[in-house]
Amino acid sequence: MIDIDRIRADTPATSRLTYLHNAGAALMPSPVVAAMKQHIDLEAEIGGYAAADREAGRLDAVYGSVARLLNAAPDEIALMENATVAWQMAFYALPFRAGDRILTAEAEYAANYVAFLQVAKRTGAVIEVVPSESSGELDVGALERMIDARVKLIAITWVPTNGGLVNPAAAIGKIARTHGIPYLLDACQAVGQMQVDVEAIGCDMLSATGRKFLRGPRGTGFLYVRRELLQQLEPPMIDHFAAPWVSRDHYQLRDDARRFETWENNYAARLGLGAAIDYTLAIGLGPIQRRCRLLADRLRNGLAAISGITIRDLGRTPGAIVSFTMEGFEADAIVTIAAAAGIVIGASDPSSTRIDAEVRALPVVVRASPHYYNTEAEIDRLIAHVAGLVSR
Amino acid sequence: MIDIDRIRADTPATSRLTYLHNAGAALMPSPVVAAMKQHIDLEAEIGGYAAADREAGRLDAVYGSVARLLNAAPDEIALMENATVAWQMAFYALPFRAGDRILTAEAEYAANYVAFLQVAKRTGAVIEVVPSESSGELDVGALERMIDARVKLIAITWVPTNGGLVNPAAAIGKIARTHGIPYLLDACQAVGQMQVDVEAIGCDMLSATGRKFLRGPRGTGFLYVRRELLQQLEPPMIDHFAAPWVSRDHYQLRDDARRFETWENNYAARLGLGAAIDYTLAIGLGPIQRRCRLLADRLRNGLAAISGITIRDLGRTPGAIVSFTMEGFEADAIVTIAAAAGIVIGASDPSSTRIDAEVRALPVVVRASPHYYNTEAEIDRLIAHVAGLVSR
Repeated sequence: MIDIDRIRADTPATSRLTYLHNAGAALMPSPVVAAMKQHIDLEAEIGGYAAADREAGRLDAVYGSVARLLNAAPDEIALMENATVAWQMAFYALPFRAGDRILTAEAEYAANYVAFLQVAKRTGAVIEVVPSESSGELDVGALERMIDARVKLIAITWVPTNGGLVNPAAAIGKIARTHGIPYLLDACQAVGQMQVDVEAIGCDMLSATGRKFLRGPRGTGFLYVRRELLQQLEPPMIDHFAAPWVSRDHYQLRDDARRFETWENNYAARLGLGAAIDYTLAIGLGPIQRRCRLLADRLRNGLAAISGITIRDLGRTPGAIVSFTMEGFEADAIVTIAAAAGIVIGASDPSSTRIDAEVRALPVVVRASPHYYNTEAEIDRLIAHVAGLVSR
Repeated sequence: MIDIDRIRADTPATSRLTYLHNAGAALMPSPVVAAMKQHIDLEAEIGGYAAADREAGRLDAVYGSVARLLNAAPDEIALMENATVAWQMAFYALPFRAGDRILTAEAEYAANYVAFLQVAKRTGAVIEVVPSESSGELDVGALERMIDARVKLIAITWVPTNGGLVNPAAAIGKIARTHGIPYLLDACQAVGQMQVDVEAIGCDMLSATGRKFLRGPRGTGFLYVRRELLQQLEPPMIDHFAAPWVSRDHYQLRDDARRFETWENNYAARLGLGAAIDYTLAIGLGPIQRRCRLLADRLRNGLAAISGITIRDLGRTPGAIVSFTMEGFEADAIVTIAAAAGIVIGASDPSSTRIDAEVRALPVVVRASPHYYNTEAEIDRLIAHVAGLVSR
């Protein structure tokens, strides 16, 4: 059982706000805020280098926390400034040649897709979008039929930014493993709201952010790279931390995933990330996932019953992101009106997930994303608020 | 005149520590600490996205602060997680072909040199080290004689990490301009201790960090790219912030230097950086530079008079980094003994500046780096401390 009262006490803003914007940036619990502020104070007190030295043990433990979160080993983890850089350092490390095929999904995130386009332009590789089932998930059978020797990467977003869809990450992993194809999973919206197990999924690389469902600081992210793969990958850019300068004409890449990092970092943010993950793990991803689904389902059902509302979520068992549109209201107007009522939600623009948005002719959609720290009463408050708009 | 008392009051640690490690990470003044902690609190109070929205004006002003610092325009500035990433995004954006020549200096920083080596391996470009004058500065005449049509980059570290040397950045810029060769200046150890004017220098790209003489947060850096050049450069990696996804098969790079950034950032750190730069500019780089030189000269002269000490600084007019070795003492031991006495200094390893270290057969050197907030008494305290070691 999740102790909601204690958790809300750790999240003082919940006493004032109905915060349902966890797919944007969640509210940080107080241990995360404290970890950062304490480290900043320590830096001011003894200097930035001495502070990092003094906290070396706790800083190193952050790798262990990420590894536990993912069921990976600490040496397979790199800590990054954000999920995008994490994803980029893996993606741009992969060698592509003309005619190589990159397979992705319809609701792939814009950040990733423009990188595909850049590499396609540079190398002659081609991007192919695996079709979705009628229920919205990537069609695993279609993926399997698309595999040939020219497929050099499967890269998908597990939980797209624009709705409840949860792609079949593990079924995709099975195909990738069977055919020995590198598999890069963008888990930005998945980590913190559901169980993530890189062994069970079978992905070779996984990127994620701290600020969303993990409730960590902005400007934090991490990359997992399977040990066997990482030692074959030369990062697209290196410094002397990633690759010590061992003799005048030689550098030697680190053995571990930190070869994707650079030397200098924001240690306060890293400690905040570690605190966020530890806080998550202490609650447990099983209970978190169940509660996220419960609240999201309640929200989806409640909204669906309101006339003029269209739920835009795809998938047979959608996750904690609830997307919808409402006749007669622009999404951004709904977000603004809700904010004035103390309800924090967001919107997702078609350009964030252009292919899916085109296939489904989506306008900007409202995005409400509850988390385990929300209450049923808050869900009902948003539903009532939206229902109230109809009669305005 | 610098109001040392007020500045030291803004830097509470100066009442307890003799902090002479500003080339590592300086002590942040209290407005920097406050800017970061206030923003973290705001994020916890209203959420990470709303906090960035509310502070959008101040966040945008950070670009203006960096631009003023460098005598550049705000659209020529990208804010980065550190100086290395700033440097990398510029360097790896440059196209090289087999036989292209990259000219650099003897005391080039390790992070940059391993990147040269990686690109040389990838493209067949060659790295050539411009010799130094007997006084230690890059030999501008030798540089001029090395120029030919195959030189595609001049990349140097203005103030090397391992001592007082100040390379003739503007004289190099003149040659670069005359021959139309891109010029990338690593100003990591220069910004905050001396006047930096990209127009006067004539560099096309400049990278720097927040944490050193600028007294900003760890995990901050920035890149300047001259407007005419930046629009010709495609960043080595892109996301949808750098290059919006404008139609299914196209992205469009931003017009400004933010094409080198990614969407997600640590806004608390950015505000800290802005506060640090504003604090610096309010004091004035002229007075700061004079005081840094004064204190460094005092330290250098005082140490030089101690038997067994060798000052290792190069250059006719060395800056605020004082490097030395001492007979019978390892550098790291001196750093540790000083720390126990409340004096914070650092050391520089030969592998940080391998070529210079090999040319000069340097061991690990002690690195003491005063800043404008230090007092003459603190300088004398370090001198007396080191003198005391002799008799131990």
